[in-house]
Amino acid sequence: MNQTFRPVRRAPEEIRVPLGFTFATAIAGIKASGRPDVTLAEACEGATAAAVFTRNRVVAAPVEVGRANLKSSKGGIRAILINSGNANCATGPAGKTACELVCKEAARALGLRPKEVFPSSTGIIGVPLPADKIIGKLPSLLAARAATEASAHAFAHAILTTDTRSKAASAQVKIAGQLITILGMAKGSGMIHPKMATMLAYIFTDIAAAVVDLQRLLRATTDSTFNCISVDGDTSTNDTVLLIASGKSGAKLNAVNRKKFAQALHSICISLSEQIVSDGEGAKHIIHLTIEQARNREEALQIARAISHSPLVKTAWAGADPNWGRILAAIGNSGVAVDPARIKIHIGDQEVCRNGAFHAFDESRAHTHLSQPDCSIRVQLHRGKTHLQFLTTDLTTEYVHINADYST
Amino acid sequence: MNQTFRPVRRAPEEIRVPLGFTFATAIAGIKASGRPDVTLAEACEGATAAAVFTRNRVVAAPVEVGRANLKSSKGGIRAILINSGNANCATGPAGKTACELVCKEAARALGLRPKEVFPSSTGIIGVPLPADKIIGKLPSLLAARAATEASAHAFAHAILTTDTRSKAASAQVKIAGQLITILGMAKGSGMIHPKMATMLAYIFTDIAAAVVDLQRLLRATTDSTFNCISVDGDTSTNDTVLLIASGKSGAKLNAVNRKKFAQALHSICISLSEQIVSDGEGAKHIIHLTIEQARNREEALQIARAISHSPLVKTAWAGADPNWGRILAAIGNSGVAVDPARIKIHIGDQEVCRNGAFHAFDESRAHTHLSQPDCSIRVQLHRGKTHLQFLTTDLTTEYVHINADYST
Repeated sequence: MNQTFRPVRRAPEEIRVPLGFTFATAIAGIKASGRPDVTLAEACEGATAAAVFTRNRVVAAPVEVGRANLKSSKGGIRAILINSGNANCATGPAGKTACELVCKEAARALGLRPKEVFPSSTGIIGVPLPADKIIGKLPSLLAARAATEASAHAFAHAILTTDTRSKAASAQVKIAGQLITILGMAKGSGMIHPKMATMLAYIFTDIAAAVVDLQRLLRATTDSTFNCISVDGDTSTNDTVLLIASGKSGAKLNAVNRKKFAQALHSICISLSEQIVSDGEGAKHIIHLTIEQARNREEALQIARAISHSPLVKTAWAGADPNWGRILAAIGNSGVAVDPARIKIHIGDQEVCRNGAFHAFDESRAHTHLSQPDCSIRVQLHRGKTHLQFLTTDLTTEYVHINADYST
Repeated sequence: MNQTFRPVRRAPEEIRVPLGFTFATAIAGIKASGRPDVTLAEACEGATAAAVFTRNRVVAAPVEVGRANLKSSKGGIRAILINSGNANCATGPAGKTACELVCKEAARALGLRPKEVFPSSTGIIGVPLPADKIIGKLPSLLAARAATEASAHAFAHAILTTDTRSKAASAQVKIAGQLITILGMAKGSGMIHPKMATMLAYIFTDIAAAVVDLQRLLRATTDSTFNCISVDGDTSTNDTVLLIASGKSGAKLNAVNRKKFAQALHSICISLSEQIVSDGEGAKHIIHLTIEQARNREEALQIARAISHSPLVKTAWAGADPNWGRILAAIGNSGVAVDPARIKIHIGDQEVCRNGAFHAFDESRAHTHLSQPDCSIRVQLHRGKTHLQFLTTDLTTEYVHINADYST
């Protein structure tokens, strides 16, 4: 499916909560700020779930445990328990034990089996997880469970680390005569604060669906949304996207309605992707990068990433500089066997490079275009028919300030 | 050969000029600053040369022409003609024609064949090369040729673009009873100024050598020196390293003395590499990165590059922050199938990460170490026996300032 990134909305969207879920949030004292840092989503019996995880070789304990639980419960996840403020990563065997203990205690409190609990963590790397603080808050979490918009909003806030705002999107579609609701909530704005990290997204729906269908849908949707954004090119050790379906709407996902549901799911992941990029660290400009005429998706992605990871390209964007030479050089460095003499580059509506060489353009108009919050850059490769949209940011002195401050 | 990067010297070295070469420099008006921007090195009859070039798919016209001339003259290069201020890149077929015209006119003036002239350009991308300005200066260049240290110094200055200082190193060794001199001069400090680019290095020697031997030596030396440094991870479209041998010392490179000569050549390339990194854009800290216990050189390099290209790692270095979690995450993202649980990381003389997890260390001492101009970081992979030294810089707000200034 072709994604379509829109001019990025900075304001949070109104949300709808699907049937079959409750949410509860508490302050466990993991975050030094004293903000909410532990949150629970509970799903009704019969819920099904699928997830995709970071491809970093270094993975946090909750990613290991979450993957194992998802597998051993055959997608039968009933609770999601997330803490922020501590990533439980690079914590050795003790980190895994702590994560398993939290799952076990949460399962006991909720009357579930440990493998039905899906854990996530985000925050500082390399500091032992204070499992007791989380376990100590289980009674308050149980008491606070509610199926309200306010409780979902609180969930979206509790998973943040140094994000400047919460990220949520929902959609409703009619399927088999039933109103289906999908709600997505996410966090992330780069591998943010010193020692902070991670993109997390949780998508809740009340359609009924087989685990294998959820897994396939989620993989495809993630590939064209969350995998097509970049703030700083660093992949976190904790990245997780979970899709969980309660079945409470009365409608079931099948071959007839799959496309309709997929589109709604897609629109939510697009929105969350946009919200993450627009909250990118120090970002002043959101770049809508389109790679056209690639031979396949893989090479289009390779080129999009080479462009959006080049410090020289990103700093030029920070200065609203229509410096197409750097974009061309980044394409040449991508590893794709492009023919530079056939490459065209557009900035906004102007062609600035034709057949790999300078093409007369109005530089001041290009500068004005790149001075906007949303900018568009289009690269044509003349190699094939694959088009790809990618969303990224500039690299500003603010980004360096945020990440260079001495943290330890 | 194992390279050894030393604490980086910021002052230029004293140089010796090998026999068989003259140098001449002029102001052709290509640089808006009015600084010297065209320079010639002439070699005596019988000189032999070899070169390595950028691996970027986008290559500048002089790289294409230089490669072709080197091949058709079978390494019989007699003159090197370089302009700064214009990269003659992304200039289309006209750029190649302009470069060939300059070679032809220089050959006519010097009584050579065009294929014996090796051209280089560095500067703005995408602007037509003013060939007439260079050709117009050929008479003054011819008149100014001299085999002096001053003329060699002028050569080193004329090839600079936004470098803050010139880069040169020389060595002398006794071979077959003869004193052999090697002189290297280079430019580069990242893909520097808006639309500026390129690392160039020229190494002159008065040993006699077969082209095939020069090529083999240069490739091996480049791999362990210039290919083991990184400022911003961007590979220029014009990168060139040329090694040229006049034979005037009376000694010939052979199996007996190869090692001695290689070591001297190596020391020069190490020095030039250090000089380039220490003049890296906005760099406040030079990082001596050692990758130990890799399975092979390729994976060691892959990991060194992943670390030294991560904006999060580089900004932490800017803040002298001993944030080993980011280094570990970058290793996990390198694409090498590392086992995180066996990784150790040292900052200075302290182990900060053992077996992929936190290891108690004195953070203030680590911070002090990283506050120095020269810092050392050591990664142990526990996979094999290959060690690699790599030299890189931090990413500072100064870097962003330099590269974000609107240039067009």
